[in-house]
Amino acid sequence: MAGSHNVLVGQSGGPTAAINSSLAGVFETARSLGAGVLGMRYGIEGLFDNKLLDLTYALGGPVDVQLLRQTPSSYLGSCRYKLPTPEQDERPYELLFDLFDRSRIGSVLYIGGNDSMDTISKLSAYGAREGSGIRFVGIPKTIDNDLEGTDHTPGYGSAAKFIATSVAEIGRDSSVYDLRNVTFVEIMGRNTGWLAGSSVLASQEHAICPDLILLPESPVTEDALIERIGELLKEMKSVVVAVSEGARRPDGTLMAEAPTGAIKLDAFGHEAALSGASRYLATLTAERLGVKTRAVEFSTLQRCANHLASATDLDEAYALGGLAVRAAFEGKTGVIPAIRRISDQPYLIEYHTIDIASVANRERKVPHAWIRDDGMGVTEDFERYARPLVQGEAMPMFVEGLPHHIQMLTWGR
Amino acid sequence: MAGSHNVLVGQSGGPTAAINSSLAGVFETARSLGAGVLGMRYGIEGLFDNKLLDLTYALGGPVDVQLLRQTPSSYLGSCRYKLPTPEQDERPYELLFDLFDRSRIGSVLYIGGNDSMDTISKLSAYGAREGSGIRFVGIPKTIDNDLEGTDHTPGYGSAAKFIATSVAEIGRDSSVYDLRNVTFVEIMGRNTGWLAGSSVLASQEHAICPDLILLPESPVTEDALIERIGELLKEMKSVVVAVSEGARRPDGTLMAEAPTGAIKLDAFGHEAALSGASRYLATLTAERLGVKTRAVEFSTLQRCANHLASATDLDEAYALGGLAVRAAFEGKTGVIPAIRRISDQPYLIEYHTIDIASVANRERKVPHAWIRDDGMGVTEDFERYARPLVQGEAMPMFVEGLPHHIQMLTWGR
Repeated sequence: MAGSHNVLVGQSGGPTAAINSSLAGVFETARSLGAGVLGMRYGIEGLFDNKLLDLTYALGGPVDVQLLRQTPSSYLGSCRYKLPTPEQDERPYELLFDLFDRSRIGSVLYIGGNDSMDTISKLSAYGAREGSGIRFVGIPKTIDNDLEGTDHTPGYGSAAKFIATSVAEIGRDSSVYDLRNVTFVEIMGRNTGWLAGSSVLASQEHAICPDLILLPESPVTEDALIERIGELLKEMKSVVVAVSEGARRPDGTLMAEAPTGAIKLDAFGHEAALSGASRYLATLTAERLGVKTRAVEFSTLQRCANHLASATDLDEAYALGGLAVRAAFEGKTGVIPAIRRISDQPYLIEYHTIDIASVANRERKVPHAWIRDDGMGVTEDFERYARPLVQGEAMPMFVEGLPHHIQMLTWGR
Repeated sequence: MAGSHNVLVGQSGGPTAAINSSLAGVFETARSLGAGVLGMRYGIEGLFDNKLLDLTYALGGPVDVQLLRQTPSSYLGSCRYKLPTPEQDERPYELLFDLFDRSRIGSVLYIGGNDSMDTISKLSAYGAREGSGIRFVGIPKTIDNDLEGTDHTPGYGSAAKFIATSVAEIGRDSSVYDLRNVTFVEIMGRNTGWLAGSSVLASQEHAICPDLILLPESPVTEDALIERIGELLKEMKSVVVAVSEGARRPDGTLMAEAPTGAIKLDAFGHEAALSGASRYLATLTAERLGVKTRAVEFSTLQRCANHLASATDLDEAYALGGLAVRAAFEGKTGVIPAIRRISDQPYLIEYHTIDIASVANRERKVPHAWIRDDGMGVTEDFERYARPLVQGEAMPMFVEGLPHHIQMLTWGR
């Protein structure tokens, strides 16, 4: 099989703490099945420049693979490339399938979110149309947890673990002086509140934190928010508000934008990266309530803080990578391995494969039943859902006092 | 001795990841010597409202003390209160010494930075003048590492461990796409570059990160900085710059301020919290070089990320707390236990006590010999100094997937 059936694997979209663990699962499973493993450098886009790499040499042994699992970012490099439809432009397809043939690729695996699943869905459909034997399998990944068809996505649990840990730490820090204050913590999530909602896990016995959570799914007015904060400040001196970057008003405008502002769109027609909801609300609250306020943004830390990765998340990411290889070797194409939850307590899941077309370009939102009645928080159902996903510590190897990483392929030039 | 010689302990100024470990050292050492331990709630300022607490009851047993060590923020609460001189106003002194007598306080211990040492220095001098038998001992604490008379300060090592870990993670994350980009990471430090400099530890074999470090001690012009970044972008696609919040121009103005801007002063006459150097430089660099830029601010995370505390730091903080109690019980007053380094490799230190007046209100800067010739980085000497301070992981107890904390006294009302 080796040589005649090479596996080609790529990473796409924003990195997560678990995306390299999926790559490790692909690599070790493919090797165990006797296949060669080639990596796309910078995703599908890199293929247009023949940026291929033989991972069999790059990842020499089990120590490399272990380091890979604990290294943040996307080891192979990534891209945000939107493949046109063959009707729009067939040339990319011809170029890619020619390259697949030349490199004797039998399976193409792509680790990514719903945009990347669109790419693999199109390639799969084109391959079927052209009678190609190549199998195309997606591997789910996104800290946003907004993929349909799977209980949750690899990357989400680790991001949630970092977010909840940091919100708990910041909450305690913000209570240190004897004065009324409000802290706004800005969390990623342009259209869904899965990440902001995960901050609910920061609460411990006797310590509710954060006090309020603003989700894109549950618009609020500034007036209602500030009235609620004012009420809380009668009962406590320090209020913590977790703010989704996509928090919005009932009229649909974002807290981060001026009421008349226009928003830039990225290559996929999505809103470009936002920033500013927490700063805006901190300024407004200080003005209206006359209290000290602070805005904290987690920025990219929430997707790259591998030192606090969830062991559950890394293990599931690895398993999905391996299962994608097995699905391809069983002849499946246009599918994606997914997670089905059996029970919350004990936490039990099973893996299955789903049709990729049912996943691509769709966006799963936080169910309304999981949003608190006041619209500024999540329910115990959300907490029961999210809690198992942050279980277990994936302690990295510390060298000279710091987590050690594998040498990035993307480093330097 | 119990009852007749109570120890009074307070925490002052900004929290660190190690300040509660010093409190644990005070508590357990004082208890082992048979003394009662009272805590000031919200520092000296809280004493004016009789905010005293019997720690013997609050910290019931070894599990509480262990949780205390791993809890961020200042367990007792803190203040930023500047004690007037007795010549300016004697009333605070009369009030405090009256309270000390009523509570049968034999020793007053204050965990803080150079401002807090000013407080303990004044109280000690006043006590000596009035013939009081009370001993006043400071315990060093500051993430800024700017205290004179000690090799380093508790809190610095843990902040450095968080900063270097996060800079390494962000550095790898920023290399993920195949495009030229510059990331500015803003790090605390208004007047000294100890924290920004610690980011040098993020470099690993084959992976220099950050590429440049801007320290308050080494002013640069925007032109020189952007020229250097432009040169680096010829050799590599992704440049990471660690920016001290107090980074400044040769004319003394801060990068964070407009050339003609005035800066607010806090109660101690210091500049108020700054923010904006990284955002300013990111915007300017994008304009001048036409590359993608990003600004990341660590904000309070760098002082409260106890989940990544340095075991060396927590152990030294505990020891200094205990040594302060022993110094007081030996009859010393107006002193502070400090650290002297014997060797970098192996890392060996010894503890000694120094006169607090030699420490208060002074500020230790990064030596010029430890700043790189180009003024935008630190030397191997700095790295040799800082490396031992981040050694060892102080893994917290994880409960339900997250670090568990002791119930804060400052929580709620």
